Amino acid sequence: MSDQKESFEIYRESVEFHHRFGGKLGLQPRQPIQTTHDLSIQYTPGVAQVCREIAQKPDLVYDLTIKKNTVAVVTDGSAVLGLGNIGPQAALPVMEGKAVLFKEYAGIDAFPICLQTQDIEEIIRTVRYIAPTFAGINLEDISAPRCFVIEERLQDLGIPVFHDDQHGTAIVLLAALINAAKIAGKRMTDLRVVINGSGAAGTSIAHLLLCIGHDPDVCEPVREVIMCDSKGIISQKRQDIQDNPAKSRLALITNRNGREGNLADAVKDCDVFVGVSAPGSLTQDMVRSMNKDPIIFAMANPVPEIMPDEARAAGALIVGTGRSDFPNQVNNVLAFPGIFRGALDSRARVITEKMKLAAARALAACVTEPTVDRVIPSPLEKDTAFKVAAAVAAAVDQDSMQRSIS
Amino acid sequence: MSDQKESFEIYRESVEFHHRFGGKLGLQPRQPIQTTHDLSIQYTPGVAQVCREIAQKPDLVYDLTIKKNTVAVVTDGSAVLGLGNIGPQAALPVMEGKAVLFKEYAGIDAFPICLQTQDIEEIIRTVRYIAPTFAGINLEDISAPRCFVIEERLQDLGIPVFHDDQHGTAIVLLAALINAAKIAGKRMTDLRVVINGSGAAGTSIAHLLLCIGHDPDVCEPVREVIMCDSKGIISQKRQDIQDNPAKSRLALITNRNGREGNLADAVKDCDVFVGVSAPGSLTQDMVRSMNKDPIIFAMANPVPEIMPDEARAAGALIVGTGRSDFPNQVNNVLAFPGIFRGALDSRARVITEKMKLAAARALAACVTEPTVDRVIPSPLEKDTAFKVAAAVAAAVDQDSMQRSIS
Repeated sequence: MSDQKESFEIYRESVEFHHRFGGKLGLQPRQPIQTTHDLSIQYTPGVAQVCREIAQKPDLVYDLTIKKNTVAVVTDGSAVLGLGNIGPQAALPVMEGKAVLFKEYAGIDAFPICLQTQDIEEIIRTVRYIAPTFAGINLEDISAPRCFVIEERLQDLGIPVFHDDQHGTAIVLLAALINAAKIAGKRMTDLRVVINGSGAAGTSIAHLLLCIGHDPDVCEPVREVIMCDSKGIISQKRQDIQDNPAKSRLALITNRNGREGNLADAVKDCDVFVGVSAPGSLTQDMVRSMNKDPIIFAMANPVPEIMPDEARAAGALIVGTGRSDFPNQVNNVLAFPGIFRGALDSRARVITEKMKLAAARALAACVTEPTVDRVIPSPLEKDTAFKVAAAVAAAVDQDSMQRSIS
Repeated sequence: MSDQKESFEIYRESVEFHHRFGGKLGLQPRQPIQTTHDLSIQYTPGVAQVCREIAQKPDLVYDLTIKKNTVAVVTDGSAVLGLGNIGPQAALPVMEGKAVLFKEYAGIDAFPICLQTQDIEEIIRTVRYIAPTFAGINLEDISAPRCFVIEERLQDLGIPVFHDDQHGTAIVLLAALINAAKIAGKRMTDLRVVINGSGAAGTSIAHLLLCIGHDPDVCEPVREVIMCDSKGIISQKRQDIQDNPAKSRLALITNRNGREGNLADAVKDCDVFVGVSAPGSLTQDMVRSMNKDPIIFAMANPVPEIMPDEARAAGALIVGTGRSDFPNQVNNVLAFPGIFRGALDSRARVITEKMKLAAARALAACVTEPTVDRVIPSPLEKDTAFKVAAAVAAAVDQDSMQRSIS
């Protein structure tokens, strides 16, 4: 009850804040226009020469314009927070918030682009058309499985295209899990992990934990990932997923022992529960059925799959949620600013699996002495982004760098 | 020679400026993120309520987001300054400059969108798709006759769509001409005007001077407009324009006495020369062939159709150019910031001919005592924008206002 009251208060305050400031960001000229000379340098006639130089040598667009530090936050409003398909206008406050975080955490100029279309082909095409202004594209709050197709098809754009709902959450979760396993005295390669929720975030978490797309030399996959959706364990035997390419693919790469059944059947004898699903879906009995010292990340928002005190009472060693009022907040803001900062600084043209892994490891390393209440930095530790950025930049391969534009 | 040397110096300085600052604008959060509370108000969980309120009542997007003060500066890079079709990346410095002027002159947050397509249908579609973030669209540097089609087709978007190269120049020119005619002691309705150049600006100037699309009660057209292109006077007899819809349309509404011939034939016995064409195309002999006290606006950039001292030596009473180093600079920055400010403040959904005319009149009225060297305010008189805005807002008809979004 007091939780709810608190939420109402935050909601009221947030609406009031947005009313008062009329949105959360503005464009600011780097230098003022006060004299005729200012006009002739920043605009005509001087700017003509700047245009000519870029026309002759396109790569100069990175030196002479805002492009190199500018990212588009693109959504179609189809899966906004936990609110569902509320459309592009109602999604704008989230995209603005994201842009604020980009600036505050990584000095990146991000601009919200909310699209009046939910057609996959049209979204892909529009992102291609608007790309010249930007050095990177942060896809946001686009529903699964459409988000997978859109992100994959845009990997040839020449600038990083990154769907934060997929990879941001996955990277922060992996970082938290690295430290949690250390505290539990378990090796990553021994972990049996259940992921409840097979949407954008759940799918990306499975990929990252299984090191799909990674060089096997640099990545140790966990022992097993079992995925659940609202109908139970995803397995190759499930008839209802045969027409769903995304889930069929998940069935192929997860659940190597062919378990069947519901979530309770899934978590039995497992080490880790990862919830990107619905409030209250994990019970204390389920926690009790897990291996010794269970690790629980219950990230449903605002109400987690199990409340931390309940999980701990049932034997959980470490509990993380998506909330700022409990320890171990798994918050994307720990990842995306640093990842883009690193990618932009190194002129990467894609964000590779290796870069994501480097981000997760750097993020884990930001906590020098992990404890059960601190497996991940707080979102307010802003230097995290720059540590992540350095690791990401160092992980850029020669063949992931941008070729000169010609 | 010294002009050229000066240009080189400005060019060098401008490139150096763009290098040093890495572009001309950045995104700035209105409020910082310093505490967990800030995060929960500006981002999750608080922002969810802001989204919900907009989803329920879409019109609130104007109160709770950046939309109401945000304009897209959209180009395809097909007609950038006098440089031609240099493409979207090379156009970015101009679009950034425009965004700086929007902010500096009218407090409007403008963001450059440079499109990687020059297909009319794709441009129209892309502008529709990206519209939710914006309260207005400033089309910029799109070549004629494509710009006419694109602008016209987008008038149903629900927010103002305005191609500045067409109307911005036309509005400032009309303002300058109102004051010039006053000084010359001529009535607007008595003026014979030659426009050399039938591209975006020339066409829009012809429309505005002839009050095409205006309520005849509020607008007095000039007596005659004669248009020239590189082949001479545009007339209905010209075979070579039959396949060009834009020029055929011009032939119908201009040149009521059916003149034929070249520019020299056009300017004879006329009162006003308007050049949006090529350097040096107007000779002193042509000026001498005009009616008493010729009014010359030679706006080719950076070298005008005739230099002011030459024009004056040949009898011109008033000479304006596009340059800041001569009197009477016809500069779009006198119009577009105020026009958009007025349109945004009044929630206009289109910029009507009446609003354009109001802008021109307000701009003319900013010069309380016009002289031959001051028929128009200097671009540095920034309060001009707010006077123009007030006049534009007052000219918004009920049926040009936005309906509530539903």
